Amino acid sequence: MISDKMLQLTQNNSVIRAMFEEGNRLAAEFGRENVFDFSLGNPNFPPPDAVREAIIDVLNTVPPTEIHGYMSNAGYPEVRAAVADSLNRRFGTEYDARGIVMTVGAAGGLNVVLKTLINPGDEVIALAPYFVEYGNYARNWDGALVVVPANPPTFQPNADALTAAITERTKAVIINSPNNPTGVVYTRETLQNLADALTRKSREYGHPIYIIADEPYRELSYGTDVPWIPSVYRDTLVCYSWSKSLSLPGERIGYIAVAPDAADYELLTDALGIATRVIGFVNAPSLMQLAVARVLDVQPNLAGYAENRKLLYDGLTALGFDCVYPDGAFYLWVKAPNGDDKAFAAAAKQYNILIVPGSSFAGAGYVRIAYCVAKSTIEGSMAGFAKLAGKYGLSKLTSDN
Amino acid sequence: MISDKMLQLTQNNSVIRAMFEEGNRLAAEFGRENVFDFSLGNPNFPPPDAVREAIIDVLNTVPPTEIHGYMSNAGYPEVRAAVADSLNRRFGTEYDARGIVMTVGAAGGLNVVLKTLINPGDEVIALAPYFVEYGNYARNWDGALVVVPANPPTFQPNADALTAAITERTKAVIINSPNNPTGVVYTRETLQNLADALTRKSREYGHPIYIIADEPYRELSYGTDVPWIPSVYRDTLVCYSWSKSLSLPGERIGYIAVAPDAADYELLTDALGIATRVIGFVNAPSLMQLAVARVLDVQPNLAGYAENRKLLYDGLTALGFDCVYPDGAFYLWVKAPNGDDKAFAAAAKQYNILIVPGSSFAGAGYVRIAYCVAKSTIEGSMAGFAKLAGKYGLSKLTSDN
Repeated sequence: MISDKMLQLTQNNSVIRAMFEEGNRLAAEFGRENVFDFSLGNPNFPPPDAVREAIIDVLNTVPPTEIHGYMSNAGYPEVRAAVADSLNRRFGTEYDARGIVMTVGAAGGLNVVLKTLINPGDEVIALAPYFVEYGNYARNWDGALVVVPANPPTFQPNADALTAAITERTKAVIINSPNNPTGVVYTRETLQNLADALTRKSREYGHPIYIIADEPYRELSYGTDVPWIPSVYRDTLVCYSWSKSLSLPGERIGYIAVAPDAADYELLTDALGIATRVIGFVNAPSLMQLAVARVLDVQPNLAGYAENRKLLYDGLTALGFDCVYPDGAFYLWVKAPNGDDKAFAAAAKQYNILIVPGSSFAGAGYVRIAYCVAKSTIEGSMAGFAKLAGKYGLSKLTSDN
Repeated sequence: MISDKMLQLTQNNSVIRAMFEEGNRLAAEFGRENVFDFSLGNPNFPPPDAVREAIIDVLNTVPPTEIHGYMSNAGYPEVRAAVADSLNRRFGTEYDARGIVMTVGAAGGLNVVLKTLINPGDEVIALAPYFVEYGNYARNWDGALVVVPANPPTFQPNADALTAAITERTKAVIINSPNNPTGVVYTRETLQNLADALTRKSREYGHPIYIIADEPYRELSYGTDVPWIPSVYRDTLVCYSWSKSLSLPGERIGYIAVAPDAADYELLTDALGIATRVIGFVNAPSLMQLAVARVLDVQPNLAGYAENRKLLYDGLTALGFDCVYPDGAFYLWVKAPNGDDKAFAAAAKQYNILIVPGSSFAGAGYVRIAYCVAKSTIEGSMAGFAKLAGKYGLSKLTSDN
């Protein structure tokens, strides 16, 4: 009696659920400390203390009916203004409060943007490998997801491949940098080439093709410049979330940012607020809006992730695995030694190591290893990875001798 | 460049926005204290102190990565179990944690349910007058809203009218009691008649027709029994929210409850969790999940609303207005003296009184007056209402003399 779309999703979902259940089964059999679960992008470091202090400050200084009441669907005016000011200070931009719409996380923001832009049959482009939910988000609003093939070994998207994928039905391109699942940060050159392609095609078809910048990992870069995409391409809708930067994924708090010179600015920003209401979000959670507005300048502490990154990257490359060097996010993208990522993930499970096949991200031939885990998980997994290297006949250490 | 659906919504929205802007204009001209805004269902009483204490308790006793991290899309297992236990204690039911899906408010819950149930072209029935967003929610998922006409003067829905509206494409009926906008609580007899009609039609068409019970006002009853709908009809999906009962509308926290004997229970509950993720809610806000689980037995303090209700109902009936006696919620449903609700609302604005025409709820001929306001707003408005009564030639006071 459920809908056909949901029946299909429920059946497909069982693959991922099976992984969780397998993790629990392994933990029960071998003990949780002997299972090395790299499957989830759930930050293991707590939020900065400033977040807790901000929540308490809101509770102590703002009247309860204001903390917990309705506000404009797009968010508290003062929170939207504070976000705009913060962006303007950092990026030399000219956002105003109207262009900021507070959202139920970046996933909420993406759905608000897609609902706002898409007519049935319109196309949205994703650059492989990409977060698998993008397809579901587009189909929520009767759009079609068109996939630009991955560009190994750098995984910097190719502008010609993007151009080839654009049709007159293309409404937007989703760009996610730092990238899930590869950890790659798109360079300014890459972004400029993509923007040039979009500008040409927008002109050819006589309507703007928007960039939807999915940016939950914006602050998670290990020294590499993360270019501000709206400075490269005018018609960019940024979907941000504090899920990863402040370790708040459960709170569902983020924003959409639209620059004042974007096409149809007033109509677009009005529609984003209305879409927020109509989808049933109504507004971003109110206490958390007021809390994040108090910590806009708090930067994440990346030392732990940086340490994990080095430990995992150095460890696996020393064993002969072919890893994409991760400039950002908290994922390592590793080539399946014989090209079969599902077989590789299954083999890893023999050593109680849980990793996600790249096929789940339209990135067959690779696996994603999420290193937002305890250091001990990485250390404990290395014996298993060494056995995997032996099983696959990797020989880097030997040949170095 | 925005979608056709959103363009239409943006244009229609301007009517409601005009009301807000008019309110601000009037406040600027006459002073906020001289404007009597009855247009919004935003609780004016603060949450019970226990809510603040619960939030602080969560912050003090739960590790931050658990408070703010991801959990199952359907919510924390212990929160879902606590909600099930609470329902079972109150209603003698047998819910288990699996049947509880935590949601981003009732609006989020309704969209999760509709996404889960509807195929394109399926029909969802609303009983007029009804909350206007239901139509948008159904159309989000390519469903059609079918409206059963209002049944004045009691506004208890008529089962024969419901039967006449059901087709083989009917997937669900939305029931909202205590009702927005009328304040009417549907009686057990009304609900039993509706349930009997649905049982007959479900059998005739060979598939269950679900009741979606939209229940943000469940706790807001002034002595009248609010029947527990799943006890009357098995295939009921309850969408609850703490927005009104605990004055937390900005926090977006609620749940869906499915009883274990509902049709397709396991598939349905799985699909509801997946729909929560796929729409972009991901999960209900995490801190607030843990907080509400600590105050499940806290009852709202209705004394203030009860006082407002009496003041407004007695005042307006004494002036000769024809009001539906409100057994629940915080709305008074008043007949427009000459039947033209839009003209009546416009006339009220001349006296700085803001009320919503019933046409906005498929209830032409009536207006909605939200009394979740300061007592002084009601007291201050009475002079204006008296002049309105005079203008419309109402004569009850005179004829009583």
